[in-house]
Formats: sequence, C-alpha cells, structure tokens
Amino acid sequence: MLGSTHGTLTTDFRARVEACGESPRTAVHSSAAPSADDAVPLDVSGRPLHADVPDLDRFFRPESVAVIGASDTEGRPNTGITRQLIAWAERVGARIHPVHPTRPAVFGLTCHASVADLPEQVDLAVLLVADPLPVIEELAATKVKFAVAFASGFAETGDAGAAAQERLGAAVRGSGLRLLGPNTNLNAFEKFREDLDGPAIALITQSGHQGRPVYTLQELGIRLSHWAPTGNEADLETSDFISYFAEQPEVGAIACYVEGLKDGRSFLLAADHAARNGVPVVAVKVGRTETGARMAASHTGKLTGADTVVDAAMRQFGVIRVDGLDELQDTAALLARARKPKADGVVVYSISGGTGAHFSDLATEAGLTLPTLSQAKQDELHQWIPGYLNVANPVDNGGHPVGDWRGRKIIDAILADPEVGVLICPITGPFPPMSDKLAQDLVDAAEQSDKLICVIWGSPVGTEDAYRTTLLGSSRVATFRTFGNCITAVRAYLGHHRFTAGYRSPFEDAPRTPSPSYRKAQALMRPSQQLSEHAAKQLLRAYGIRVPREQLVTSAAAAVRAAGLVGYPVVMKASGPQLGHKTELGLVKIGLTSASQIRDAYRELTDIARYENVPLDGILVCQMVERGVEMVVGVTQDDLFGPTVTVGLGGVLVEVLHDAAVRVPPFGEDQARAMLRELRGHALLEGVRGAPPADVDALVEVVLRIQRMALELGDELSELDINPLMVLPRGQGAVALDALAICR
Amino acid sequence: MLGSTHGTLTTDFRARVEACGESPRTAVHSSAAPSADDAVPLDVSGRPLHADVPDLDRFFRPESVAVIGASDTEGRPNTGITRQLIAWAERVGARIHPVHPTRPAVFGLTCHASVADLPEQVDLAVLLVADPLPVIEELAATKVKFAVAFASGFAETGDAGAAAQERLGAAVRGSGLRLLGPNTNLNAFEKFREDLDGPAIALITQSGHQGRPVYTLQELGIRLSHWAPTGNEADLETSDFISYFAEQPEVGAIACYVEGLKDGRSFLLAADHAARNGVPVVAVKVGRTETGARMAASHTGKLTGADTVVDAAMRQFGVIRVDGLDELQDTAALLARARKPKADGVVVYSISGGTGAHFSDLATEAGLTLPTLSQAKQDELHQWIPGYLNVANPVDNGGHPVGDWRGRKIIDAILADPEVGVLICPITGPFPPMSDKLAQDLVDAAEQSDKLICVIWGSPVGTEDAYRTTLLGSSRVATFRTFGNCITAVRAYLGHHRFTAGYRSPFEDAPRTPSPSYRKAQALMRPSQQLSEHAAKQLLRAYGIRVPREQLVTSAAAAVRAAGLVGYPVVMKASGPQLGHKTELGLVKIGLTSASQIRDAYRELTDIARYENVPLDGILVCQMVERGVEMVVGVTQDDLFGPTVTVGLGGVLVEVLHDAAVRVPPFGEDQARAMLRELRGHALLEGVRGAPPADVDALVEVVLRIQRMALELGDELSELDINPLMVLPRGQGAVALDALAICR
Repeated sequence: MLGSTHGTLTTDFRARVEACGESPRTAVHSSAAPSADDAVPLDVSGRPLHADVPDLDRFFRPESVAVIGASDTEGRPNTGITRQLIAWAERVGARIHPVHPTRPAVFGLTCHASVADLPEQVDLAVLLVADPLPVIEELAATKVKFAVAFASGFAETGDAGAAAQERLGAAVRGSGLRLLGPNTNLNAFEKFREDLDGPAIALITQSGHQGRPVYTLQELGIRLSHWAPTGNEADLETSDFISYFAEQPEVGAIACYVEGLKDGRSFLLAADHAARNGVPVVAVKVGRTETGARMAASHTGKLTGADTVVDAAMRQFGVIRVDGLDELQDTAALLARARKPKADGVVVYSISGGTGAHFSDLATEAGLTLPTLSQAKQDELHQWIPGYLNVANPVDNGGHPVGDWRGRKIIDAILADPEVGVLICPITGPFPPMSDKLAQDLVDAAEQSDKLICVIWGSPVGTEDAYRTTLLGSSRVATFRTFGNCITAVRAYLGHHRFTAGYRSPFEDAPRTPSPSYRKAQALMRPSQQLSEHAAKQLLRAYGIRVPREQLVTSAAAAVRAAGLVGYPVVMKASGPQLGHKTELGLVKIGLTSASQIRDAYRELTDIARYENVPLDGILVCQMVERGVEMVVGVTQDDLFGPTVTVGLGGVLVEVLHDAAVRVPPFGEDQARAMLRELRGHALLEGVRGAPPADVDALVEVVLRIQRMALELGDELSELDINPLMVLPRGQGAVALDALAICR
Repeated sequence: MLGSTHGTLTTDFRARVEACGESPRTAVHSSAAPSADDAVPLDVSGRPLHADVPDLDRFFRPESVAVIGASDTEGRPNTGITRQLIAWAERVGARIHPVHPTRPAVFGLTCHASVADLPEQVDLAVLLVADPLPVIEELAATKVKFAVAFASGFAETGDAGAAAQERLGAAVRGSGLRLLGPNTNLNAFEKFREDLDGPAIALITQSGHQGRPVYTLQELGIRLSHWAPTGNEADLETSDFISYFAEQPEVGAIACYVEGLKDGRSFLLAADHAARNGVPVVAVKVGRTETGARMAASHTGKLTGADTVVDAAMRQFGVIRVDGLDELQDTAALLARARKPKADGVVVYSISGGTGAHFSDLATEAGLTLPTLSQAKQDELHQWIPGYLNVANPVDNGGHPVGDWRGRKIIDAILADPEVGVLICPITGPFPPMSDKLAQDLVDAAEQSDKLICVIWGSPVGTEDAYRTTLLGSSRVATFRTFGNCITAVRAYLGHHRFTAGYRSPFEDAPRTPSPSYRKAQALMRPSQQLSEHAAKQLLRAYGIRVPREQLVTSAAAAVRAAGLVGYPVVMKASGPQLGHKTELGLVKIGLTSASQIRDAYRELTDIARYENVPLDGILVCQMVERGVEMVVGVTQDDLFGPTVTVGLGGVLVEVLHDAAVRVPPFGEDQARAMLRELRGHALLEGVRGAPPADVDALVEVVLRIQRMALELGDELSELDINPLMVLPRGQGAVALDALAICR
C-alpha cells in the first residue's frame, strides 16, 4: 500500500459547484474564462474545468468605502485602522463613509448609524467589529460588492470558531457579496510606491507578517502592485487572487505565502489559469514536515494535504515552490522583471578562475546548462583577455580587462552569443577600481540587451556604492546576496519559460462524460467493503487493464477443470473480501503443473483459510505470467485534492525505499511518462543485467486508465492498489497480477 | 563493481614519510603532536598516524623579512607589493630588507644585491621574481625559515609547469626552509582589524579572491586572525595550516576554500588534529560535479579525488562542508564565536504564529530538534503571552509583549529552560516599535546568557538601525539574512559539538604492524592480474571472512566427489582469472542435487568456457547458502585517499540505485555501523515482509576485516568486490558467495 488519506471531497465539490452555478457569481466571470452558456463546464467527477475568476477591480480600486466600527478615539485599535483606511481611500480616490451607532463624525467625516443609513451603495465595506456575522448578513442583501472582516477567533481557534466561520461563508454564498477574511488585516490597503514602473509582483499571504519582506522589496526598487492578505478564507481564497492577478497586465509574477489550501481543485485551476496566461507563480507552502503542517493548520484552520501531493500538484501546474522568504523575494523579483529567455545557456563570467570554477560547479550540479562557447567566440574574447585564461565558460578575465574599455566589450560579446540566455557574474569581493567599473558595465549592458544578467554580490557588508546604488539601482540586472538564491531563481526562471512554452492545459482534455467502463465498474462496487482480489481484477478489466486468465472456483474438481482452460502451469490463491497479506499467510501456491498438485493445493489453501478464520469467496486459478519488471500502480484519496494516482517500483523498492511518484488528475501522457522518470530505480524499466527493456508504453497506458477510473469513481473508490503490475518486455504489455480495492 | 580509481599513493606516502622522517622538519613538531622518539609513528600501510604540525609562528610574526625583487618604480606591479609588505612589516614589528641586484635603496630602505648580502638571517623571504627556483635553492642552504613565491606559471599551466613546481618542492624538501606558493599572493600580509576580540576565524584559501568575503566579515565586527593563501602548494599545504591554526588559542574556527587537495592522508590527519583540539573546520570544496572538479584542477593543478570519497572523508573527521561562500562566512562566524551548547534543543521565537510555524517546519525538516516546552515553562510564558497563543515551541508572542518589559522576561525564561541550547528568532519585517526593542532585548539577553541566540533579519534592505547597529554590533547574537544559512549554521554548530564530544581518533586504534593474515594474503597476490574467484575467496578466508564450503576441481569425477564432501545441493561455477559476468555467460549452475546433474553441469560449463574462449583454472563446486540479505562490500583506490572501503545493498539496489556508502581508512566500528545507516535500503537489514533481522554484527565485522586487508595490502590490491555477501539471519553470520580481486 502506498499510504492513503480518506476524504469526501468529490461530493463537496459537486455541492459547491452546483451552488456556484446557480449563483450570481458566474456573472462576474472575466472574459478570459470561457462561459458560452454561462455555466462552468464540469468534468466527469463533477468538478469545474475552468478557474472561476472573480472581478476584483472594485475591491482594489473602489469608488466608495464604508468603515464599519470606525473610531477616532485615541488609544483604541480601531482608530489607527480607521486613520490608515482614510489615507488609503484618499490615495485610490474613494469616498469614505464611517459607520458607528453613536458617533456623529469620525475624523471630521460624517458618521452613519448603520449600513442601512449609508448615503450610497458602496463598493467595499471594511468591518472592524468583533462579530462580523450580522453585518455580513445585512450587506449580503444589498448590492455591496466586497466586504473585509478583520475579526479573529474563527477556524484558527477550533471547532466552534470553524462553525462560526462556516456561517460567515454561508451568508455570502449565493449573494453578490464577496468576503475577504475573517482574521485578515490592513495589508491590502498599504501604501505602494507609485514611482516604480515595469512589471510588478502581486503578493498573496495567509499570514500578513510573512509578506513583509516581499513588500519591503519596494525599498530596493522592485514594484509591488497588490497585496492580498487572505486570512481564514471563509469566501475569497488564495486561488481567487492567483486567477485575478494572472489577468492584470501590470503583474509580472505572483508571490504567495500559503499555510494551507482551502480547496485543492480551485488551486489547480488557478495555477492552470496563470500557466495559460504565462504568469509565474512562486510559492512558499508550509508543511514540509508533519509538525509544520499541523502548526500551519492550527494557525489558519486550513487543510494542508499530504506534502508530497501538494508538491506534485504544484510541479504539474508550474507553480515554483521555494522554502525561505528570502528565496520567495529573490525568485519572484527575478521572474517578475526578467524578459523571456532567448536561450537556455548560462555563462559564468568572473574576474577569477577560482570564482568561475566554483560557481560553475554549483550551477551545473543544480541542473543549469553551461554550454562551451564556440571557438570563434573564444577567439573573439581572447582579443581582450590574455590567451592563457580559460574563456570557454566559465569566462575568466583575469581581472585587469574589467578596469578599462575591454570590460564592456567582453560582456557584449558574451551576450551576443545565440546560445547564451543568462550571464551570471559573481562579484566575490568589492575592489572598487575593478568592481565599480564591472558593476556599471553590467548595468549598462543590461539596458541595451534583452538577455538576463545576474550578479552575486559576495561582500557580506552590502553598503558599498556599487551594490546599493549601481546594481540595486538597475531594474535590468538581478542582484543576489547568496549563491543558493541566485541558482534557485535562475533555475526557476528558465524552468518557468520552458514550462509555459510547452504548456497545454490538462483540463482541455479531461473527460466530461463517463466512459462505458464506468457502468461496468459501478456494478462491481460494494460500499464500505474491501473487494476480493477477483472482484478488484474485474474492476481493472472494466477499464481495459489486462489481468491474468483466471477462474474463481469453489471445488477441487472445478479447479482442475479451470487449470485446463487457463493453461498449465498455474498459480492458485485464496480469494475473499478483506484478504491481504496472502503470501505471508501461505495462501498463494505457484508453479502448479498437474491435476494432483492442484487438488493438493486446493485442500491446503482451504484448510489454511479455515484455521486462520478467513472468509473466502473461492480459490483463484490463474495463469502464470512470465517475469518482467514489477511495478505498483494505485489510487489514494488526498484530503485536499481528492483522488491521486501513484506509480512505483514494486517489491523492495516501493516497500523499503518508497520509490514512487504521485500525480493529481487530470494529467496527460507527458506527466505519466514524467512520473516514471522521477523514479530512482527508473533504469530498471530500460533493462539491467541483460534484461530486455520493459513495455513502458503499456505501463503508461495503465496509469492513464487508472486515472480515468479514479476520476469516474471519485471518492466511491477509497483506495486501489495494483501490486504487482508485471510489465513485460517491450511490445508484450503489462498484466495486473494482484489488486486490492476498497470502496467507501 | 562499485566504480574504481587507480593510484599509486601508498608508495608515494612511504617515500614522503621516509623523507620527512629524516628531515629536520620533525624538529619543528609542536608539543601537541607526540614525538617521543622524534619519529612520526606509522600505520601498517606506512602512512603517518599524527599530523606533522609545522611551527608557523615566525611566518605570521617574523622578526625580519627580505623582499627579493623589491621595487619603488611607479607603475611596476612589484612596487605596489613592496609598499604593502613594508606597511605589513611595520604593523607586525619586523625589520625589512629589500633585495635587488642594481638598486641602492627602495622606498628609502637600504637595498641588498643578493640573498648572500643580507645583513642578518631573516625569518621570511618574499620572492617577487618571475623564476623563484634559483633563489629558493640559495635560501634552502641558509637558515631562513620561510619563503613565499608569488610567481605563477607552474602546475596550473600543464606538465612543464608541474615539473618546474616539482623542482621547487624538491629544493626545500629535507631543508629547514618551508615554502608557501608558488602562484600565491599578498593575502597573508593584509591588514587585520586589531580592535576586535573574542575567538577569531583563521582563513585558508587556494584562490585568494575567494577568501575576500570572509576577510570582509571584519567590517561586520567578526575577528579574523590569519589568512593563508596556499596557491599551488609546492610545499606548505592546506593541511599544514589547518593543523597549525588548530593550536592557536585565538582561533575559534578555521574556514577553508579548497579546490583540490595535495594529499588525502595529510588532510585526514589535519582534520583529526583539529577534531582532537575541538576546533571546527568549515570548508568549501569545489568538485561536486565532474566539470567543477576538472575546472578546479586546471586552476591550481591539484588532484580532486572522487567527490563522494572527499565528502565521506570530511564527515568522518568532522569537517563541515558547505557550498556557497555566503554559507562559509555565516557558518564559520557562528562556529568561531558561539560557546559550547548546553543542550541540543532549539526554540523558535517570533512575533507571529505564521513565522514560527514556517521556520519550525524548515528547521525540523533539516534535522534540528525542537523540543516541546514543559507545561510549567508554558505556564510561565503565559504570564506574559496571551493564553490563546501557542508557546509550546515555536513560541508565538503575538507581537505586543515585545514592546514592553515583558519582552525580555520571555527571552530569559526561554533561555533558562535546561532543554534549550539555541533560541532562533526570525524577525520577518522591521517594524521599529517592536523590532528595535526585540533586537535590543535579544542582544542584552545574549550578553548575560551562555546560550546561543540567532536572528534572521528578514528585510531585504539591510540598512535598518536595529540590524546594522544593534544586531551586527553584538558579538554574542548571530545574525543571518536567509533562512537557509541560519539552519545550515545552527545544524553545523550542534553537529560539531556532538561530534567532538564523542570523538575518539581512529588513528589511535589504527594497526601498526601486519596481522598474521597479511603473509597468507601476500602469497595469493598475482601482480597485474585479476585473481580467479577461488583465489579471491582464499584471500577473504585469509582475513577470516567466511566463504561457502567449496572445492576447485578439474574433472567430472572429482566434481562428484567434491559434492559429496561439500554436501548436496551444490552450486557449480567456472573459475578462472579475468572471469567476470559468469551468470550472463551461463557459467553458473545452481541447485544441483545428484551425481548425474553434476556430471552434466561439468560438461556444459567446460563446453561454454571453450566456446567463449575463457581460460579456466577449474570448476568450483560450492555449498548452496540459504537466503539472506545480499550486500556488496568492496575496496577501491582513490587518487587522493588511496584504498577506500565501500558497502552497499546487493543486486538491483547497488546496480540501479547506487545505494552504497564509502569510508576512508582508518575508521572504527562506529563508522562501519554508520555506513549501514546511510544506506537508503537500510530497513532491509532489519527484516521486511516477514523476513528475520539480518546479522548486522557479522556484516560490520566483515567491513572491518576488509578495512584491515585494504590497509595491509595498500595499493597492491587495486580492487576488491564481494558481490554478493549473503548476510544471514541474526546470529548466523555472513558468507561471501562471490568475489573479484584485481592486483596491481
């Protein structure tokens, strides 16, 4: 077994989608999401096939804002918030209306006693009250578009809080009102620098404090366009903001800090939407460890899902996962601002052979491609660089040429090479006569080139002019302080563009109607039961997956007849519901070659079953299948994403080394093949120790058929395990020798 | 086969040690290296058992210095160098004597025409001349202690340069003169800040430019005591400086940038010397990739060895390997300054639950231990922190308490917990009313505590007062800019102290005289040949390693007789020198149970050998050994370290997944057991799928016996492979079923 989590998400999905389908929310679909008949298209599992992109223009740029619970009494927390909201409204040009039952005015603005008394239909209501529910219910009946609830004490505090939060969500569901929060803060209404131009980062955080480093990037000249602090996500969630930001022309990259996701499917659809639009999403996702996942869940009251599944889902849809907030800053900043690469080749350029060798070693290990420069290019570089220095890549200039007119020539010559997409220059130590000139040359060259230039500023001090003024002053040069962050960001940059260039949304090809297999499969399902091996194999056959010739028999005489039909030699196994660990119990006999062996085996198997008190539905007489590569293919249910498909190497490899790969449906053949490449023991499929190559095409086909089954059966199928799937030599197919299926 | 590299180092070692043994260099042994009879003790392989620690006091603090090739002509490179040397000599209080054949004076100092004309016996001669050899030869005949050769154009340029470098090395070998360089620079003579106190970093670099970031740490208040730019290491090498620095009281940590090592053994001995003295060594070692290794080798003309072996050797002797220069800075600075930990427990303390959960997740994943604080401690913290916040670890104070008197109370209470060794506080965003006070409280608490406090300053800006003045102004708080570097450094800190606390030098227990096995083994060796399976197994038996009962026969009749003696069932295999891949060629027959089967098998095996043209020394008739866990144990020769011992899981695991661990002798039983724990498939030894636990003690014993063999046979044994070693259930031993041995 590959480990399993159980959930009932498919049903929830259906309920949710139905609710949405009837709600006015479909009316706010953006033009990018097709909605020909105004209904969200659904796949065969009843889940949507397109992101439901909310129109948040009036949230970020409202014309009028109500502040409910406004205050100007010094010392009250709401006073500071009110002051900040008034300043923000002024910046975005919104009219502001304080609401308070007793105050006549707040900071000189006329105060209204209640929402009903507001002088106009506001776009946005900000709730500073401790119990937002009554106001939300009142607002939901109006035409107010957006509400923000700051109050905490909801799902993050336990079951009672979660119920209160559910009531908030229910209050807006089906209404035209969209809610941000509860347990959110002022981050969306911060002051953003208006003097910066070029592509911006849009930021989404579930813990406002954790977004501060990315916000602070503005002080280094990196533009931030939006900040969505999603808090507990009773309604609007991270995915809504990803989809919306992916449509904003000023957004170059989306940076997310995620503790838990509210809904796996909406996250996939949002990531898909961003991938279609070519907008990179960089995310910190807490939960690498069980402990971390638990703490994050308790912090925002969200699901975290199995980390391996989250990780796979992100990679499938091109979301770039990083770990530290420093990596989030550096990677998002690079991806937001760098233009599309002209080539994948990276050149390392330095004033020291040691630096070049060292950085190239680490970059190569991290998977970057460092092409050897052509002889013609090397000859060109040797016009300016002494002949004894290595300029093949890394390019070592020996130091002196950077101090004069040659410095710029060298940089331009490297950038002119068609194989070069990125030039990385580690400036190990500041030595102003060289490094100031080098920094300026790199900045100047970057202005005139469409290729990416990265600098690692090696000095730990960071107050040097060349760093702070020249390099940070450039929006074209990406400057890093550590080797690791530079490599992470450049790999993400090249990877993102490779990914989006070849991206085809798997939702385009996801099945929308049940296959003929589905009806056959449904007939085999037994709620709350583990199917017998025989029934589980029939389920596989329903989806066109090959199983050995076999017959289920209930007498020794029938067993002998069955062997004649199946063909000698045969395998005999006890078959029954709830029956695992057959081999350990002695309930499998292999290599039987005669009627008398079969009669003996029949007696022995039924005896053991009787003594072990194992209920049988009979004895399976199966064809012996010749040797191939043993694999495991399975379906498990993830709390967040619903059914997932796993493939691993069988036997010791999956049991001891957990050498398995997982994917979240829908995915295409390319991803099924990628799963196999991820396996550490992948070479086994190519044939080792003189074995022939395995029928990988047949294996891929099984994975895709299992995906189809997982999508169609949804959470009716709690778990499925083919173990082993014997993959025969190329051209000969794959056979499921044993299977386990558990129905919900 | 586990991969092999061939070398002839043992012989070189012997030659080198003999040279040293007779040289005056043993006279400069420091008191820490035992030298009762003034000879370096040797192990059975003829290699030294103690670091040969040079006395470099007069190198770093000479009383008199000659500058050969001194100049004061503006525009000449030597002029700048001369000026810098004069300034340095003034700082260290040395008399300086320019030497030049034609100049009467340089910068007002009397100039001498040649070395012979010097007015006194100098401690140090700095050679600025293009061809240092004649001067070195002249100096070697005097009582001058040290020379530095700046000139480049030696091993880094190819074979001719390597030969010239060898002549330099030969010129000083056996003399009292020690040489730094060639291809070195002025780094040793830089200006170090004298106003800093506390433990310092000593720096060793093979590429001077790469040491600049660590040198620059002085601007952040981190003390640097020495810088050794070792260049091409014709004589003095990285290891000499490690050993010397490990004895200097002011040195808290040694930071190294290594492109290649001159000699594996001297590196191990130096690392051992540092480990005995409890001085941490942090090293960047270029060569993670083949490309990197090649580039580094071409940069300084040194060997790089197999990276997995270098990596293992470093871990065995407690050297902390890092990748980026930023990690080198951060880790060395922490290790130099932090006191011995009182406990291994790490507490994460933050003003935000999100920050705490996030950082704890990453720290836990990296292997740090985050103990749950006791209920009593949590109650104590809840005096100052609201009750709804989690203070179990991570400790979330919710923000407000840091702004007043409670802030310091909380920190002190955490530090007072006996389980806590390290407090890590990620300050995600600067918010002066809180973060300035928090930073100051942390700095104040650190002054009064013997526990380590680390801060991650999350703002990318880095010009904030709390960061630059308060935090960097403290020598007790370790401040980081990235999550990753903090975790790397804290893990290294706790790991270093755990390592040294339990450290027992394996050189103490290394064999010094050959075992009785050695004579038996020698008789079996056949120079330049691959031994037959039978002979290889005799080699194993000589070292007390169990092999199956077996007989080598040359007739069918003898085979039948042998089977009677060995006991049925038997295995028969062709045996001959140069015979590999027996199974693929059909030269193995298993499970033979009768005389007729044996006669048939004999005929078939000899037929195949004839057709395949394989010379045989006979047919092996072997006992069948029941099933166990198949392992591989082997010896390979590494260019740098000589013989190494490898252990891996047999069959598919080692062939496809390369699941093997390597160690450089000498190592003890603890390391042999650690090798097994390193294997990804380690659980197989504990018994999976109902299998009994394997006889791990017997396996460890085989590894140690193979180590003994490797040490005694040295490079006479080019390669040895036991594949498989069948490890039987606990208490039943381990049997080498097949073996391959190649003699040099």
